[in-house]
Formats: sequence, C-alpha cells, structure tokens
Amino acid sequence: MRKYGIADTTFSRVNMASVAIETIKETDPGSKIERYTVPGIKDLPVAARKLIELGCDGVITLGWVGKTMLDKYSYLASSIGLITVQILTMKHVIDVTVHEDEAEDEDKLKDIAIDRTEKHAKNLVYLVRDGKEALTSFAGKGLRQGYKNAGSLD
Amino acid sequence: MRKYGIADTTFSRVNMASVAIETIKETDPGSKIERYTVPGIKDLPVAARKLIELGCDGVITLGWVGKTMLDKYSYLASSIGLITVQILTMKHVIDVTVHEDEAEDEDKLKDIAIDRTEKHAKNLVYLVRDGKEALTSFAGKGLRQGYKNAGSLD
Amino acid sequence: MRKYGIADTTFSRVNMASVAIETIKETDPGSKIERYTVPGIKDLPVAARKLIELGCDGVITLGWVGKTMLDKYSYLASSIGLITVQILTMKHVIDVTVHEDEAEDEDKLKDIAIDRTEKHAKNLVYLVRDGKEALTSFAGKGLRQGYKNAGSLD
Amino acid sequence: MRKYGIADTTFSRVNMASVAIETIKETDPGSKIERYTVPGIKDLPVAARKLIELGCDGVITLGWVGKTMLDKYSYLASSIGLITVQILTMKHVIDVTVHEDEAEDEDKLKDIAIDRTEKHAKNLVYLVRDGKEALTSFAGKGLRQGYKNAGSLD
Amino acid sequence: MRKYGIADTTFSRVNMASVAIETIKETDPGSKIERYTVPGIKDLPVAARKLIELGCDGVITLGWVGKTMLDKYSYLASSIGLITVQILTMKHVIDVTVHEDEAEDEDKLKDIAIDRTEKHAKNLVYLVRDGKEALTSFAGKGLRQGYKNAGSLD
Repeated sequence: MRKYGIADTTFSRVNMASVAIETIKETDPGSKIERYTVPGIKDLPVAARKLIELGCDGVITLGWVGKTMLDKYSYLASSIGLITVQILTMKHVIDVTVHEDEAEDEDKLKDIAIDRTEKHAKNLVYLVRDGKEALTSFAGKGLRQGYKNAGSLD
Repeated sequence: MRKYGIADTTFSRVNMASVAIETIKETDPGSKIERYTVPGIKDLPVAARKLIELGCDGVITLGWVGKTMLDKYSYLASSIGLITVQILTMKHVIDVTVHEDEAEDEDKLKDIAIDRTEKHAKNLVYLVRDGKEALTSFAGKGLRQGYKNAGSLD
Repeated sequence: MRKYGIADTTFSRVNMASVAIETIKETDPGSKIERYTVPGIKDLPVAARKLIELGCDGVITLGWVGKTMLDKYSYLASSIGLITVQILTMKHVIDVTVHEDEAEDEDKLKDIAIDRTEKHAKNLVYLVRDGKEALTSFAGKGLRQGYKNAGSLD
Repeated sequence: MRKYGIADTTFSRVNMASVAIETIKETDPGSKIERYTVPGIKDLPVAARKLIELGCDGVITLGWVGKTMLDKYSYLASSIGLITVQILTMKHVIDVTVHEDEAEDEDKLKDIAIDRTEKHAKNLVYLVRDGKEALTSFAGKGLRQGYKNAGSLD
Repeated sequence: MRKYGIADTTFSRVNMASVAIETIKETDPGSKIERYTVPGIKDLPVAARKLIELGCDGVITLGWVGKTMLDKYSYLASSIGLITVQILTMKHVIDVTVHEDEAEDEDKLKDIAIDRTEKHAKNLVYLVRDGKEALTSFAGKGLRQGYKNAGSLD
C-alpha cells in the first residue's frame, strides 16, 4: 500500500495539510497518509527525512515564508536541505512554499496556498504511483501552481 | 529518561539558555538537560551534533546575529549546517535566532529573545516527547515566536 | 550500450526534452534514453539521481526559472543539489537552465532554450562517450550555449 | 597530549598564525601545534580536515576576505565548508575571519585581526581542553572578537 | 610519481590550461598531468572528483564566470561543490576563477587569467609536493593572484 508523507508548519497561516490530505485521498484512494507538524520551514527537512524512514514513498512539505530578507535566507537553507533529503533517500519531497509577499490581499494569499497545495499533491501522487513519465505529457507546458498556467511557447 | 540539548553562545546579549532550561524543566519535569556554550552561531552546528552524540533526543540552539550583510551570510551558513545535522541524525534541532536589527530598542530585543526561546523550548519538548502530531492542532494557525501570532487565514 | 538520462519539467514553457532526445539520437545513434519529468527545478536533483540509479551514464537536466528573486534562490539551491549528485555518483549531470528574464521576446526565449539544449546535449554525449579530453580542443574558446560564442582572447 | 591545528593563508595581510601560536602556547603550555598554510579562504576547509586527520583535537582557521561581492560569496562557500568539516569530524574548527572592509585604516584592521585571533585561540583551547561548559559562564554576555564587547542586556 | 589534475572549460575565453600545464611541468619536472575539459564551472566539481579518482594528488580548476547575478550564483554553487570535493577526498583542489567583470579591457582580462593560473599552479605543486608548511613563509604576506600583491600590514 502506498504511503504519503505530509509535513506542515504552525507558522503557516493556512491549514494547507487539510487540502493535501483531501487531494491525496481523492487522487489515490486507499493510500495511507502520515503527517508531521513542525514549527517552521527550517524544521521541514528533518520531518521529511523522518517521514521517509516511517515508510513514506514520497513527501509533500507545506512551507510558509515571511517577507524579510532573513525569511528568504531561511527559505534558501530549507530548500537546500529538502533537496539533500531527496538525494540521500531517492524519494520525492515536493516542496510547496507560499511567500507572504506573493499577494497583498489575504484572500488571494489563501487562494494561492490552496491551489498550489492541490496541484502539487496531485503531482506527488502521479510521480509516486505512476513513475517517471507520469508527468511527461505535460512537459514544457508552462504549468504553474498558485497561479494560472503560463502556457507553452511551442 | 528524555534528554534535551541546549547550545548557546557568548556572542548573544541575552542569556537565553537560562530561559530554555527553565521552560524545559517546567514543561517536561524529570527530563535531563545538557548544555554546550560556544563563541558564535557558526559553532552551533558542531555543538548540536555533539550534544546528540551525548544522547540528547533533541536540541535547541540559541543564536544571536549582528546587523551586517556578513552576519547574515554567517546566519545562512549556520542554518544550512543545522539542517544538515538534523538530516544526518534524524533528531530535531530547533533553531532560535535573534537578529540585532529586529528591534531598535534593547528592551524590546530582550523581550523577543525570551519569548522566542520559551515558545521554541516548548515546541522542542512537544516534538521530542509527544511525536510528529504533537503540534498538529496548531498547524496553519500562524504562530509566531518573538512576536504575537499572525493568526490563521482560514 | 550507453544510456542517457533526460530530466525535464512541467514548469518549462518549451519542450526542451524533445530537442535533447533528437540531438542525442543523432549524435550517438543506438544509445538508449531514459526520461524523467518533474514539476520544477527543485525536483531535478532527485530525478537525476534516480536516472543514474537506473543505469544512465550521464544526465541532462532541462530547467526553466522564473524572474523573481525567489526563483533565483530556487535556482541556487537546485544547482547545489545537481552538483552534489554529480560528486556522489561521479557521473556528469549537464544543467541546461533557461531564465525567463534572459529575453523580453518569447520567440527569442524559445530560441535560447533550443540552442542551449542542443549544444549541451552534444556536450553530454561527447563527455560520456569520448571521455575527459573530448572537449579539450574547444577549451578556452569562449563557447556559449543559447547565445553566439564569445570567442577566444588568445 | 592535546594537539591544536592552525590553518592560515598567504592572502591574509597579517600573520595571524604567529598570534595564534603564541596564544595557544601561553594558554595551554605543553600542547602541540600543527600549522597548515594555504593560498586563500576557499582552501581552508580541506586544510582543517587534514589537520584533524593528523590528530588535532581542534582547529583555528585564519581567513582574510576582500571587499567585493565575490569575496563575500567565497566567504559564504568557505563558511559552509568549515561547518561541514565540523559536522563530519565532530571537532571544533573556530573560524577567525577578517574582512578588508571592516576598517578604513590599516592599523585598525591589524588590531582587529590580532584581537580576534587572540580571543578565538583562547576559545579554542577552552573548548578543547575544558569541554562544553568551559564558556558557559560567559554565555549571553555579548562577547565580541576584534571589537569591544557589546555586553549583556540582562 | 606525482600526478596533477587540470580541469578547464570551453566557456573560458583564455586557454588557461596551457599555462597551467607549462607551469606545472617547469615547477615539478617529471610529474604527470591529467586534463579534463568540461563546458562550464558547474561541471568542474565532478571533473575534479573524477581526476582524483584517476590518481591525481591535487587538482587545479580553471573557471571563467560571466557578469550577471546568475553567473555569480553559479559561481557560488560551484565553489561549494569544489570545497565539498576537497573535504570528501582530502586532496587540494585549487580554484582559479576569472570573472568577466574584473576588467573592462580584454587584454587586461587575459593578463589576469594568465597570472592567476601561473601563481596558483605553483601553489598547487608546492602544497602537493612539499606539504602543509610549503607556503608558511608567505603566510600573512598579502599575496594576490591576478593582481599585484597587497603586501603585509605587519
């Protein structure tokens, strides 16, 4: 039975995990989900690693990043960490990050968070369940998460 | 018996470790604490690693960062290091960092340091003692350490 | 039989993999190609690693990067990850990246993507098939991918 | 017998190693010192690693950094490397860095270099010889190296 | 017999490897040289690693970096990679990098490239052949490669 990991934070202003759980259940019914909640984005890499040790076939992390330069440095450090976890475990850790400065409007920000989570939760299922060519028909299509697709230049 | 590690610095202008010790003792009475004091933030990753080797189930690091661009680069390098330690050991290393430019006022800066340490010391205990869903009821709630909570957009 | 890996993204606005496939087939007829499509650049390092585990002798990654500072930080994190994969596996992972701000004009952007992919796909074949001095006659020649060559100052 | 490593550079404009040697000899008489001189800061991580392989219980690195953005990126890369060495070896590598733009005046720059080296050489001895609580009485005291202490806010 | 590795690029506008080869042959006659030419700086870390696997006692990498912010991020990622290679292999990888924005004038740029390569090729030989104190008599002397020496402040 496939098992998906969800790592989320108390720093986030939207409960993105509930969106991820619902999406995964709809997209891969019968799969199992493990959830790990940490304070902030810098705690996500170890949570992802531990979820993989618990048998997860792939993980989605749900980060929320503040507006300052220091928040951005924390984002950079976390991103490097999440990539390192993937390299070491050879499992996908799909990184959903919402930056507080992506939108002035709070409703808009919430919409971004939900859309990005839904789309990436599906991406995770496709990659874990269907393998390396699951997304190939969408390659180069300019897909965006949190925004409308940019589209292909072909 | 659970054991917590505390790594702090002589660079810091507030004795945050005393706050962390008190908070851990109150939150998890009967637990053991190991402390490691180093000069500055770039020394924290190895201190955290050594504390884990001494049997700590989790570590809180208490960093203080100056105002210059170089201090910020040191913060970035240290953050990458702390995340690497967590990935390698699969233990939480909760990173409390106070930046000197977070407040003009020294009293305010001290308040930030104390609040952030208290809240993250509790986070560490919850994660170490109660596991991966200990914080799940607060997921997406916009919790902040050092400031008042931003709150949920849900 | 030589095997090449191609890792591409759904974020990209040009189907660069089709260019890479064609170029590799022309340059090294009879070789085998494995393709891995992921959402975005931060997913490329694990895809490259997995392609190498599938027996690829070398990999080309085809990334597309947005215009914001955060996109650039993601580029940095991904680059560090791709280099780490190479160091650990001792296989080449040639990184083709197109930045949306390289050209105002969409046609120009597509031209850059195609040219860069073609040239680097050939570079990958030369290195994998012919070894460490395959490119030596071009050393110091100021070759560019996506642009016309800068040329030698000698 | 304790052994300390000193890694310094030919790029530096002050012979900081002579200060470090003198300070270590005074602070821990009878200890042994190994010295490794490299061209610049990016060569310090491997020098530190090799000194530890030679049996050093801890290392002090003495870097000097130019004024340009590229020098700062080199500083960042070197800092990440020095932290990685510590994480892998579990030995302290205390990093003394002088930035050419810390002072306009060359005499002042030299004073910074000497003061910072002296204080951190002592820190190294205290940590290596006396262990993890050797500096605890100075925790949160706002100690500075190269400048006068900032002091405690408590 | 000592063996030196040279990793260079087709991106570079000066054939720095020919300078390195000549300098190494003059400085350590009878030594062996292995050369690895790659497209650009991000390919240098794996080339250095592979040269070390081929038995090289040390490596010199000859990078050339463009003028944009993205080129600088690539420089940062490559530098981290080259340092990682050194930490893992415990061999020196001396990094010669020329930045296109170091000089307006192309002749000047070429002069920088040649001077820097010559001096660092000698540094590599000294370190590999004569060990950790080979450069100690120049420690703190403010040596520069590509420019005239800054000199000592002592």
